[in-house]
Amino acid sequence: MMTGIPFSIYFEEDFYPLLNSGLFSFILGISVWYLMRFKNKKELSKKEGYLVVGLGWLTMATFGMLPYLLSGSIETVGDAFFETMSGFTTTGASILNDIEAVPKGILFWRSLTQWIGGMGIIVLTIALLPMLGVGGMQLFIAEAPGITPDKLKPRIADTAKRLWLIYAGLTGLETILLRLGGMNFFDALNHSLTTMATGGFSTKNASMAHYESMPYIQYVVMIFMFLAGVNFTITYFGLKGRFKKVIENEEFRTYSIFTLVFIAITTTGIYVFTDSDFEPAFRDAAFQIISMVTTTGYVSADYTSWAPVLTVFFFFLMFIGGSAGSTSGGVKIVRHLVMIKNSFLEMKRILHPNAILPVRLNNKAVAPSVTHHVLAFIIVYLSVFVFGCFFVALTGTDFMTTISAVATSLGNVGPGLGTIGPVDNFAHLPMMAKYMLSFLMLIGRLELFTILILFTPYFWRKV
Amino acid sequence: MMTGIPFSIYFEEDFYPLLNSGLFSFILGISVWYLMRFKNKKELSKKEGYLVVGLGWLTMATFGMLPYLLSGSIETVGDAFFETMSGFTTTGASILNDIEAVPKGILFWRSLTQWIGGMGIIVLTIALLPMLGVGGMQLFIAEAPGITPDKLKPRIADTAKRLWLIYAGLTGLETILLRLGGMNFFDALNHSLTTMATGGFSTKNASMAHYESMPYIQYVVMIFMFLAGVNFTITYFGLKGRFKKVIENEEFRTYSIFTLVFIAITTTGIYVFTDSDFEPAFRDAAFQIISMVTTTGYVSADYTSWAPVLTVFFFFLMFIGGSAGSTSGGVKIVRHLVMIKNSFLEMKRILHPNAILPVRLNNKAVAPSVTHHVLAFIIVYLSVFVFGCFFVALTGTDFMTTISAVATSLGNVGPGLGTIGPVDNFAHLPMMAKYMLSFLMLIGRLELFTILILFTPYFWRKV
Repeated sequence: MMTGIPFSIYFEEDFYPLLNSGLFSFILGISVWYLMRFKNKKELSKKEGYLVVGLGWLTMATFGMLPYLLSGSIETVGDAFFETMSGFTTTGASILNDIEAVPKGILFWRSLTQWIGGMGIIVLTIALLPMLGVGGMQLFIAEAPGITPDKLKPRIADTAKRLWLIYAGLTGLETILLRLGGMNFFDALNHSLTTMATGGFSTKNASMAHYESMPYIQYVVMIFMFLAGVNFTITYFGLKGRFKKVIENEEFRTYSIFTLVFIAITTTGIYVFTDSDFEPAFRDAAFQIISMVTTTGYVSADYTSWAPVLTVFFFFLMFIGGSAGSTSGGVKIVRHLVMIKNSFLEMKRILHPNAILPVRLNNKAVAPSVTHHVLAFIIVYLSVFVFGCFFVALTGTDFMTTISAVATSLGNVGPGLGTIGPVDNFAHLPMMAKYMLSFLMLIGRLELFTILILFTPYFWRKV
Repeated sequence: MMTGIPFSIYFEEDFYPLLNSGLFSFILGISVWYLMRFKNKKELSKKEGYLVVGLGWLTMATFGMLPYLLSGSIETVGDAFFETMSGFTTTGASILNDIEAVPKGILFWRSLTQWIGGMGIIVLTIALLPMLGVGGMQLFIAEAPGITPDKLKPRIADTAKRLWLIYAGLTGLETILLRLGGMNFFDALNHSLTTMATGGFSTKNASMAHYESMPYIQYVVMIFMFLAGVNFTITYFGLKGRFKKVIENEEFRTYSIFTLVFIAITTTGIYVFTDSDFEPAFRDAAFQIISMVTTTGYVSADYTSWAPVLTVFFFFLMFIGGSAGSTSGGVKIVRHLVMIKNSFLEMKRILHPNAILPVRLNNKAVAPSVTHHVLAFIIVYLSVFVFGCFFVALTGTDFMTTISAVATSLGNVGPGLGTIGPVDNFAHLPMMAKYMLSFLMLIGRLELFTILILFTPYFWRKV
């Protein structure tokens, strides 16, 4: 939190909110660490692992809201909690009505919550979740973002460090490129932090539509959003020059093809249904598609104003998600891939009931149990969506707002439809809806089971 | 079709449309049967079975629209096709703006299409689909409505006859009970035909809201809708006095519990959010819940006017469906049951990855491959929903109308939300949307794979 202080000083703002919340959290953190130290256990049990991850994220969101509250930028605990959870889960939904009026130091902290959240997800999916799964990779394989974790290096800590280096490096590179394009340093840094986290918090009220007259800026952001939605191990191989590994990865290919096809559909839609010229239509289409698929949630145009078919299309896009092992949320491409392949095979299985027809991914047969895990994940995802809608609607929120708010929160996307559309925010929602949506962001971000398992009797039963 | 002629004569209408379409269809049917006879094959191959079922339903819908067109009750082929498909698939969505102005003979034919459709589904799920699956029951087990087909009698033709007898008997009983309650004979018969088919075509413009002041009528219809949503083999056991078999059936228990819980939720909702008294609130809640869960689609009140949370609730109800082996559409209770049980087990599996934890149904372990089929079915169902929404939205239909029209058509329910809500009809939709929805009704009615498989290369490849 104290990292925002230089900006506060530079912009001549009151830096005490940041300093106080930083010191408070630091002291409390040290104390807990000191107390925990005496437990003196070498390894976490699996169940402790789940608790640490769940409670860890919750603690971050609780302390992370201090700068907002102490500075008075956000007045109620509910709103501050929503904004912080939206940050750490890299969702990007906001309750701020006037972002540009918020002190720069606080805005930097807001962007940083997303960047830290993205970093957390990388270490979680690469390092921690596989350890929680028995057999090392089993849990990572289906419940964590990736199904095909190419082991980069034998040592997990080493792997995490390499991926963080890529994460930080790309953030730095984007900052430089945006600065060169005429964005000031503060905005360039903030947007880079939230791009690489596929978070989508912007320092501008109009989000990326603010830079409508600067195509270079929008294209740079598009490229980095796309990169942030790629499995970081694939990016690592790419940087090492091992392009064969990249091209051969089926999730990467599908992610690229989906993105291109969706851009083509949307460009056609905008071109046919509005009176836009080709370049702006293509740019808005490409920007919004990449933003939605990677679950970043930046907005360059009001995608609900184009045509009914595109509104429906963008609603379902909230369920796609980027690659496993990236910072993006949602269901993830690899799961869709397994699901689509399995659906076609299902018909073949009906015609040839005695044949063994496993789903094949990257030229290898996927174990039936893993395919089963993927289908179960998707179904639990949709069940959480249904229950979430019911509870949010209980607060009196209308149909379209409800279902899109739940979809966008659970998928960690950001904007929705209806009264929380691309040109609106979440400020006007009832407080109970905000708490519910914050909780859905957390469930979605931690791949459902990490949180849901805490609510089962199995978890609390003593062995 | 000629069965409507007595009504035409009684009500002094022009009966030639019915006579001509009947004769035409009869002559064509005889000719085809005569031509086919020379093929002289003893048994259908599996692939021929799929073709016969798919083309059979399509042929019925094509010839079934003749009475509408010849009588001028419906003017365009698209509308007539929609109404007929909605009939044979027991959906109940209508394009008629003034139902009461349609000649009685034609109205009877309209109700009869649903009753025939319901009869077709019984024979399909009990007799034909199991034969198409290798191993006798395998296909029936997961793709046809039922997972647990208690073999009633060894001979399938025998079984079908017994179930038809129950179907016809209950239809007759309901007619008598409605007549005794003060409904005229024509309306009583028509409503009974469409109740037992869980179809939902009414002879009144206001559907069952027409009988708002006659609670007896509404309660009778509720009871028979509920019965029509029960697996007919369970009803058979019940009539035979083997109540243990009925009570022990998990799908029946879940169906009953779901219905009661949903009624409680809806009654509370209506009571809290509107100024309705308790009895009317309970009656409307019970009527609409049973109507939606069984996919009948009768309307006793405008469920979209109660509260946002109930609108959201009723949208998701379109995905439930009644029992397998009944005339209802949708996903079906037994699949939801397997899905819910599997989702909870999934968390247990994560904590105990080496334990073998199959879903248990009726105190028996379900084979993992069957559970897999069920999950795949649900996912394909939702995929068809998503693609359906996209194509219907392409015709310019708004978000809420689109997604509810697709959900209600695929689930063979009837009414939706938005501009096709309980007090509206489908007349104003673009023609392309009507064709698309007709197709979705067929896919949903024939348990997806029966139709979808015809579009795969596997089907057309020579062995």
